[in-house]
Amino acid sequence: MGHTHTKTIVAEGVLDANDALAQANREKFDAAGTYVINMMSSPGAGKTSVLERTLERVNGEIRIGILEGDVQTTLDADRLERFHVPIVQVNTDPGFGAECHLDANMVRSGLPGLPLETIDTLIIENVGNLVCPAEFKVGEDTRVMVFSVTEGEDKPLKYPLMFRSVELVLVNKIDLLPYVSFDLAQFHRHLDAVNPGVERIMMSARTGEGIQEWCSWLLARCPAPVR
Amino acid sequence: MGHTHTKTIVAEGVLDANDALAQANREKFDAAGTYVINMMSSPGAGKTSVLERTLERVNGEIRIGILEGDVQTTLDADRLERFHVPIVQVNTDPGFGAECHLDANMVRSGLPGLPLETIDTLIIENVGNLVCPAEFKVGEDTRVMVFSVTEGEDKPLKYPLMFRSVELVLVNKIDLLPYVSFDLAQFHRHLDAVNPGVERIMMSARTGEGIQEWCSWLLARCPAPVR
Repeated sequence: MGHTHTKTIVAEGVLDANDALAQANREKFDAAGTYVINMMSSPGAGKTSVLERTLERVNGEIRIGILEGDVQTTLDADRLERFHVPIVQVNTDPGFGAECHLDANMVRSGLPGLPLETIDTLIIENVGNLVCPAEFKVGEDTRVMVFSVTEGEDKPLKYPLMFRSVELVLVNKIDLLPYVSFDLAQFHRHLDAVNPGVERIMMSARTGEGIQEWCSWLLARCPAPVR
Repeated sequence: MGHTHTKTIVAEGVLDANDALAQANREKFDAAGTYVINMMSSPGAGKTSVLERTLERVNGEIRIGILEGDVQTTLDADRLERFHVPIVQVNTDPGFGAECHLDANMVRSGLPGLPLETIDTLIIENVGNLVCPAEFKVGEDTRVMVFSVTEGEDKPLKYPLMFRSVELVLVNKIDLLPYVSFDLAQFHRHLDAVNPGVERIMMSARTGEGIQEWCSWLLARCPAPVR
């Protein structure tokens, strides 16, 4: 029991320090006029595919930058290279103890690699995980999650903090609905149980369905600046 | 930097304590003659569905018990109730700070709810997460992961510790292969890059394909005791 108690105190200290660093990040973003989205999901729910479809449509209308968070590899950043937008990769292993999430300090470590003053909207692609990323503010303006219908309609109840912490749920891979056991009505009820009325967009990054609606949401949030 | 350094030391201390508790769990399992499988995956990869198919086939041949790990809810345990096997639910929230994995202490906390002496094989269904569960021994004999082809063929490279730490990969949802962009040959290469030659079984918990092969693997590992 002593072990558990000590751990709790340490965790609170870590979260306090994180909040202070998140605030410092936020001040940098505000000074540069950069709107920041923390994008979260399970592994393989489709964050990078959504970003590919997004950059195809809005790159040029607004200037997007990407901060890629992964435990290892630069695979996601490599996939986005063809769009020629500013991208920085933050790997949590090595360097940050193979953490399962981005925290404010990790995001801070990536900022020198990004020309914030030329970025209207920075999208932070968090580590694929439905638990810890939701616990750590990184200085973002808003949080969006990508959820895949292959994950099952029970997930809002099982991972409530994540679903509760976001402003928008992109319900991805809906092209697979005919082939999976997924009760969509039940999913909506579970989502409303933990985050009543939260915005949601039905989407398939594969077929393109819903991408325009998401891009409109994005452009409404981060309008193209008068230049 | 001081912050990061302090955190690293704390993490090492936590893992040392965890190993000691895992060893204590292991001694209990050995004393009871219980073989223990730590089953891990992303959220929604199909662990509970695999367990349903497994219990339909081998329950009776060997006596199975289940320890369910979830952040919240008893939904998975509820799904398995109809098999009338010993099940105990461990929720990491509340009680363990909403941790994103099971550790040895959490497993220990669930053991009083399980009649180990009547359980030949205990399957621990870990929290859905591809990072931290791999870092914490819980006293298991072996580790098995369920991987869904909807997650993408890049995942062994992005989450190498998980794929490296298991003896068997159940490649689930292969009934969806015609409908997803998943390069199976590339997946096998990525898997072999991080865990050369690791055993893998192609499976669909939905159609039943591969379930018999997995049950044979299970029965070979944990033969029915002479009673």
